Amino acid sequence: MAEVDVTGVDAAAVDAAVADLAARFRAALEPPVRAMSALDAATLRARFDEPLPEHGLPVEEVLADLEERAGGGLAGSTGGRYFGYVTGAALPASAIVEAWTAAVDQNVGMWPLGPAAVELEQVTLEWLADLLDFPRGSGYFGSGATMANTVCLAVARHRFGLLHGVDVKQDGVRALPELAVYGSDELHLSDHKALRTLGLGSGCVRAIPIDDDYAMRVDLLDEAIERDRHAGVEPAIVIAQAGSVNTGASDPIAAIADVCERHRLWLHVDGAFGAFFRLCARTAPLVAGLERADSLAVDAHKWLNVPNGVGFALLRDAVLHAETFGGSAGYLTPGAGANLHELGIEASRSWRGASVWAALKQLGRAGVAELVTRCCDLALELVELVEASPVLEATAPAPTNIVCFRYRPAGWPEGAELDALNRRVQAAVAAEGDVFHTGAQLATGFCQRAAIVSWRTTSADVRALADAVERHGAAQAGGG
Amino acid sequence: MAEVDVTGVDAAAVDAAVADLAARFRAALEPPVRAMSALDAATLRARFDEPLPEHGLPVEEVLADLEERAGGGLAGSTGGRYFGYVTGAALPASAIVEAWTAAVDQNVGMWPLGPAAVELEQVTLEWLADLLDFPRGSGYFGSGATMANTVCLAVARHRFGLLHGVDVKQDGVRALPELAVYGSDELHLSDHKALRTLGLGSGCVRAIPIDDDYAMRVDLLDEAIERDRHAGVEPAIVIAQAGSVNTGASDPIAAIADVCERHRLWLHVDGAFGAFFRLCARTAPLVAGLERADSLAVDAHKWLNVPNGVGFALLRDAVLHAETFGGSAGYLTPGAGANLHELGIEASRSWRGASVWAALKQLGRAGVAELVTRCCDLALELVELVEASPVLEATAPAPTNIVCFRYRPAGWPEGAELDALNRRVQAAVAAEGDVFHTGAQLATGFCQRAAIVSWRTTSADVRALADAVERHGAAQAGGG
Repeated sequence: MAEVDVTGVDAAAVDAAVADLAARFRAALEPPVRAMSALDAATLRARFDEPLPEHGLPVEEVLADLEERAGGGLAGSTGGRYFGYVTGAALPASAIVEAWTAAVDQNVGMWPLGPAAVELEQVTLEWLADLLDFPRGSGYFGSGATMANTVCLAVARHRFGLLHGVDVKQDGVRALPELAVYGSDELHLSDHKALRTLGLGSGCVRAIPIDDDYAMRVDLLDEAIERDRHAGVEPAIVIAQAGSVNTGASDPIAAIADVCERHRLWLHVDGAFGAFFRLCARTAPLVAGLERADSLAVDAHKWLNVPNGVGFALLRDAVLHAETFGGSAGYLTPGAGANLHELGIEASRSWRGASVWAALKQLGRAGVAELVTRCCDLALELVELVEASPVLEATAPAPTNIVCFRYRPAGWPEGAELDALNRRVQAAVAAEGDVFHTGAQLATGFCQRAAIVSWRTTSADVRALADAVERHGAAQAGGG
Repeated sequence: MAEVDVTGVDAAAVDAAVADLAARFRAALEPPVRAMSALDAATLRARFDEPLPEHGLPVEEVLADLEERAGGGLAGSTGGRYFGYVTGAALPASAIVEAWTAAVDQNVGMWPLGPAAVELEQVTLEWLADLLDFPRGSGYFGSGATMANTVCLAVARHRFGLLHGVDVKQDGVRALPELAVYGSDELHLSDHKALRTLGLGSGCVRAIPIDDDYAMRVDLLDEAIERDRHAGVEPAIVIAQAGSVNTGASDPIAAIADVCERHRLWLHVDGAFGAFFRLCARTAPLVAGLERADSLAVDAHKWLNVPNGVGFALLRDAVLHAETFGGSAGYLTPGAGANLHELGIEASRSWRGASVWAALKQLGRAGVAELVTRCCDLALELVELVEASPVLEATAPAPTNIVCFRYRPAGWPEGAELDALNRRVQAAVAAEGDVFHTGAQLATGFCQRAAIVSWRTTSADVRALADAVERHGAAQAGGG
């Protein structure tokens, strides 16, 4: 059989495509013009909607085709005026390294399939543990905090099985006694999803009320545990949240750790973004005690500003971690190093840790601390703008990098009409697209909510947000 | 507060870094010199092992630093002489598009956070369904076949709950009756892991014996189902495998679909690579009936030759799929299009589908068919080389793209010594690193195992593998 190139690729075409990539990649690293797309779903769908092509397109045209179709349809989350959820931008070094890893295409699931990649990831996990003052035990890079929560809670489930003489890998959740998991009223959807995935069901979660600071009330946690014990339900896991998504508050981790110690429960910290509060002097006390957790789940595409798709799990007990996911098969030929498929849910896996390594190399510990501190300082600036405005008011404490506030012109009472006004304001700001933030439903009503986490955000960007809410507020209140 | 650039990045530095990326990216797209790294774990670890840096490195130096440290430590899986497991290479268009998506950094978990990205993925999933003759229902891009299997089996678990009046999302696996899942003796580890993750435990799996063609014996499947029914265990799911990893065989899907219909069981097809056998005229009949499955899980980083980290789940019933993962929270502000976090396990998610879109654009349907056909033809060539050699012999049928064979000089009997010889041969070929393949433990003993799936593999590469096994076989047999 003659050597056939099925793809019709020649070196000149690849050269042209790579030159094209460089220009487009450079442009994509520029701050985006808009924070939010102005195009609707039908328009964008129509751009992509064609039948599966029968024949291929020259390689050098594919990226241009994508850029043209996607043009105007991208969220500007890499810019400084994107305040949605808790979404980092992409640090140049991380984006560049991640781009390169697409070409070398290592599979870190087994050591022989990505030897350097596996070793880099192991070292990077140690760096992350050191950065967050968490004990160096064991770790895993998943696709985000939800996967990291799932990995951590799978280890907790395994350990709960051991305590009750059940091999949960073999016999499943049916063999376990009825168990309870504790989290605050503000527990993130991601934890509920992890528990559902693991077959525990979200019905096992006891939602512990929060105090005025949006933090879990530990006295009520203790009561709930006792109540379950008396009812014959086995308390198993407490999930403390470092950084609640609504307000950026943190549960009192040290006090929760005391409760877990007393009741011998697994302490999992969902630190999707809040774990990084340790890096800012003002916010560090909020997450004191985090180092006492059995497991910690964190996103890297939040504070570390790496491209989306990377989170990490840190486990105190490496043996429990290995037991939870260990197991090979007759067709696998292990190599000389770690086989990461035995530390997580996935088999084949991309080289996720490289972009995290790159962020830590670009910033260093001092740069990460500066980034976190600066964003938390910008949140204070936004609070000051809100307090100084006659038409804005804070609606929750803002102890970290998230600010909740609302538009409330003189004389408007609390209630459904004010909520509706604020919904219109959020939607109008998003539709204009110069800045992007979200809303949140708090006990005090619907509010404007901004998370500050991008390395690009400045004072001017924060002011632009306050101005946009005031401007659209006036228009909506006048027109409403 | 003055505008501070925490990262010390200026435009010139980014320009330099992007120029650097282009050169290195182009080099990384060249076929690698070696199929396997020659460096050991300790050497590679030492290359990366330094304390977490206190201060950052200039952005333009980070990629060069990584390339230097990783040099010689990468698996050459993007080349034509990599025959390990079933691992595709990286098509240039896919690698380039994936690189660009790192820079634009969309989060497809919710529509407003990646509007064009979400629409592209939805269209691409429809293309994939069309390509594989699977009904257009619903789908999801996960990080690989294991995640895709997990998504599919979570939907199956949800539906099993509905049949028994259980809301498994809320009440978990404990509320379900005891259930059984059926797969062949050759069922992939990935399915076992998915069942463990989902809290069903791998103990629920009934391993159905295989026939001489390594395919599930449907008569024994039927018997096993009846046996469970009589024992009071609820048969729930049958996992048919399109493409077993040892030999590339496929279970008889149409006959299994008949059984599932008769017993009203969920039919899941693990088609990690075998689903693509539909694209080659010779192998298509092996996977007939695949279109009757309730769910199908496939890897994209195998036949589609996109960079590692993408698989997809296809579901026949879009309503069941949405019910399984649906659910929002007070802090989420939905947009005008689909929120993909409600179709899978993850919350934030990278734009995985873009590289698949790029592969389908670069190849077209005809190009995919040509690629699959060509690799399956090359497997036949390898079989011919084995049959023509006086010292090689086939050890299993090779109906698709995987070939199992062993080195067996005249007069060597079956048994432990021959197995040991073949283990040494595989290890010696891997250590030399010019070609890379794995071994497999079959009922007939330990054998050499090669999977042909790269767009770059040619007749010369296949011959190089046969030659390497003969050469190292002679050395090991002489020296053993």
